Order: sequence, then C-alpha cells, then structure tokens
Amino acid sequence: MTGRLIGVGVGPGDPELVTLKALRAITEADVVAHFGKAGHASHARAIVAAHLRANVAELPLLYPVTTEQPKTAACYREAIAAFYDASAAAIAHHLDAGRTVAVIAEGDPLFYGSYMHLHVRLSGKYPAEIVAGVTGMSGCWSAAGAPIAQGDDVFTVLPATLPEDELARRLGATDAAVVMKLGRHLPKVRRALEAAGRLARAIYVERGTMADARLMRLAEKKDDAAPYFAVVLVPGWETPGGAR
Amino acid sequence: MTGRLIGVGVGPGDPELVTLKALRAITEADVVAHFGKAGHASHARAIVAAHLRANVAELPLLYPVTTEQPKTAACYREAIAAFYDASAAAIAHHLDAGRTVAVIAEGDPLFYGSYMHLHVRLSGKYPAEIVAGVTGMSGCWSAAGAPIAQGDDVFTVLPATLPEDELARRLGATDAAVVMKLGRHLPKVRRALEAAGRLARAIYVERGTMADARLMRLAEKKDDAAPYFAVVLVPGWETPGGAR
Repeated sequence: MTGRLIGVGVGPGDPELVTLKALRAITEADVVAHFGKAGHASHARAIVAAHLRANVAELPLLYPVTTEQPKTAACYREAIAAFYDASAAAIAHHLDAGRTVAVIAEGDPLFYGSYMHLHVRLSGKYPAEIVAGVTGMSGCWSAAGAPIAQGDDVFTVLPATLPEDELARRLGATDAAVVMKLGRHLPKVRRALEAAGRLARAIYVERGTMADARLMRLAEKKDDAAPYFAVVLVPGWETPGGAR
Repeated sequence: MTGRLIGVGVGPGDPELVTLKALRAITEADVVAHFGKAGHASHARAIVAAHLRANVAELPLLYPVTTEQPKTAACYREAIAAFYDASAAAIAHHLDAGRTVAVIAEGDPLFYGSYMHLHVRLSGKYPAEIVAGVTGMSGCWSAAGAPIAQGDDVFTVLPATLPEDELARRLGATDAAVVMKLGRHLPKVRRALEAAGRLARAIYVERGTMADARLMRLAEKKDDAAPYFAVVLVPGWETPGGAR
C-alpha cells in the first residue's frame, strides 16, 4: 500500500488566494514538501504557514543553484536534473512508506512550476493528483484591474528571454500577452513592444499580489530596473475605461 | 458614500477550488450578482451556493440571447451591449445606495469572462477590486495531470473559431497551447493539430473539473462531437512520462 502524491497550488502570494481544496490537502497530508533556496524561507510555505499542522513532517527541497546561470549551460542542466532526481527519490521514500505527500507550489502546479519535474518522475509509479491554483499572472492582472482577454482573443505568454525580433513579431501577432521573467531583459522588451505598437497599453507589474506591489504603465516607468519575477501585461482590451 | 464593486472569481467548477478571499467577499457583500441564462441556474452561483448567506440580496443578470448567433451579427452585438449596459446600471443603483456588490464569475474574472464588461463600464466611477480565481484551463490540465508549460516555453490560448490555416500555423509556432470553445470546430482543430505535428500529444477535455469529466487523447477520440466549452490541451512537454 503506497502513499499518494498531491501537487498543491497555493496561489500567487496573498494567503487569502488559497483554495479550500489546497487547505484540505495540506492539513490532511502526512508530509508537506516545498521548494526553496538554501537560507531563504520557501515562498509557498510562507503563503500557507498559518495552516500547517503543528509538528507536521516537512520536506524542504533546496535548489542547489543560487545564482542565475544560463539555462543552456551543461553544468546547470545537470545539477538541476540531479536535484529533481534526488527530490523525487526523497518523496518516493515517503510514498513507499504509505504516506501522503503534499508538494506545495506557488501559483498553479502545472503552469511554469518546479512541481512538474517531480510529477513527471513520480506520477507513473504512484497515485498522483493535482490541486489547481490561482496563477501568478491572474494575481497580476487582478491587482492591475486590467481585463486581459475576452471573446475570441488570442492570448500568449512570452518569456522575456526571447530574441528582440521574435518578441516584437509575437507581440504584434497576438491580441493579449504576458511577458514573464523580465529582469535584465526589460529594455529589450520595451523596444519590442514599441516595434509591435503595443507599448502604450503595456502595464508593468512587480510583486503583483503582495502588499508592496508596484504597478504602472510601462511607458511611464523611467528606469530599466526590474526584478526577475516582474511581468508586463498587454491587455487585449484597448483601454480599461473603454467598453467595446 | 458609494458602495464597492468586487469581481469575484469562483474557479472552474469544483466548489473546493474557491479561494478564502472569494468566500470572504461573498459573505461580506450586500448584494451577490451572477450571470446566467433565463431558465437555467447560474454556474457561478451553483459553485458557491453552500456559502451564500440566508436571505442575501441576489441580482441575477440573465443573458438575452439563448441560442448561439454569429458574434459578428449586428443584432447580436447590439443586444449584448445593451444587456451589459443594463446590467451595469442595475449594479450602479446598488453602488449609489452605498452597497457592496460582489459579481461572482466562473474561473478568473478578467480572463475570458463576462464580468469584465461590467468592470470597464463601472470601475472608472466606483471603487472596484478583483479577486483572482483558478481558471477553467488550470482545472482542465490539473484533471488531466498534464504539465502544460515550463521554463522558457511560449504558451498560447487559441479560440477554435480561427481559420484552419491560422490555427495550424499558430499551433506549430508555440510550445504549449490550449484551444478553447471547440463545439462544432473539433474536426477543423483536429486537422490543424495534425498539420502542425501536434495531434499525438493533444488531450481532449470535457467538463474538466466536474465529477463527470471526460478526458482522452484526441487521437483516440472516435467521433467529432464536442460541447462548446470542451477544450484541447497541447502540453509543451513531449510526454508526461518523460522528464526533460
């Protein structure tokens, strides 16, 4: 009799944007696992900290790489793959002992999250289920009050790492977009939005669902500093004030 | 002293996929408004029915058009615009009287939802806030256990109404996709996926977070029958069993 793996989305950051299903999964689990960086509190854990059972078994999964390296570097890829293998093995140990393991994940577990690296390694061998969560993107456009897509709109999520001409081409060919992982790519993203004719409606969002969120029209942002997790929203609707 | 407008996402259908923030907004509101069709229970209302206060004031907003008409038809557009105008006026009446109005919406309020038609009409005149919700898409790929997008993937939401060649081109140019509003467009979507080389990994999902959900590989679906709200998922990850 093996245990059960549950990937639990805990939403974009606001502890109130956690679902009833996530809370039940966390309070019923024998083990709560969470990703984080060594020396830092896990963001996912912080979101649900008030709901963790006293003395619940926790399994912190600590990323081995703390400074950003090119994803294409062989040493980075190998270190990350070995880390996910070891994390899956640590969870399998609990599952083999018949324990239910809830892996809590910021946002939605299967949408740009680390959890899915465990899911692909374990879901073929153990019963696995997913508790969907509110994505970080939803948190950002909700904080901005920006209607993002409607009707027959095409909506695209683009990583800021794409080359400038590809970004401009894709931004020009979609009704609505979110550009993720801005960081040092902000100047390039700004130029691509301008080339695509979308700079005027672009909204810059930092820490979208945190108390210290920063939101502004990108065209009005004076500097090019942006944290890695900042995003740019390109609403499909021309102006929030103008019904169509 | 005017009231406050709150667009409240109640998630994809599973009553447990409602957030704490949504429940608080609903239980604190003076008026709970919901979209629906005349003669049918509102889906959003059904999701949170167990949490509505006894005798809370409800404002049903009933779509005037019950049979699907081409969105491009002038009479359809005019009827819908008049309906949203009247709905916004009914809500404004409560707001002017100092009441807090929660408009409950399936999924996320600003992502392909009717609520945003009210938001653009009212948010310039009244205090308005959004409670983000779990989207229908997240519910579908969670039910399927399908890791949808990761890392630097480009992710695209496509309406099935697009022309076949455009669908094929866009499906071939994205890492991951969701095709929405299948209905009678399923044969076309199937051909476009085949042309893009993505049919083998496409997953067909009906009623994703309902007890009677149907999920299967699209390539194994024998017929071309699909309800309007069925979707096709095209995970960016080649196979759920194959880690990358």
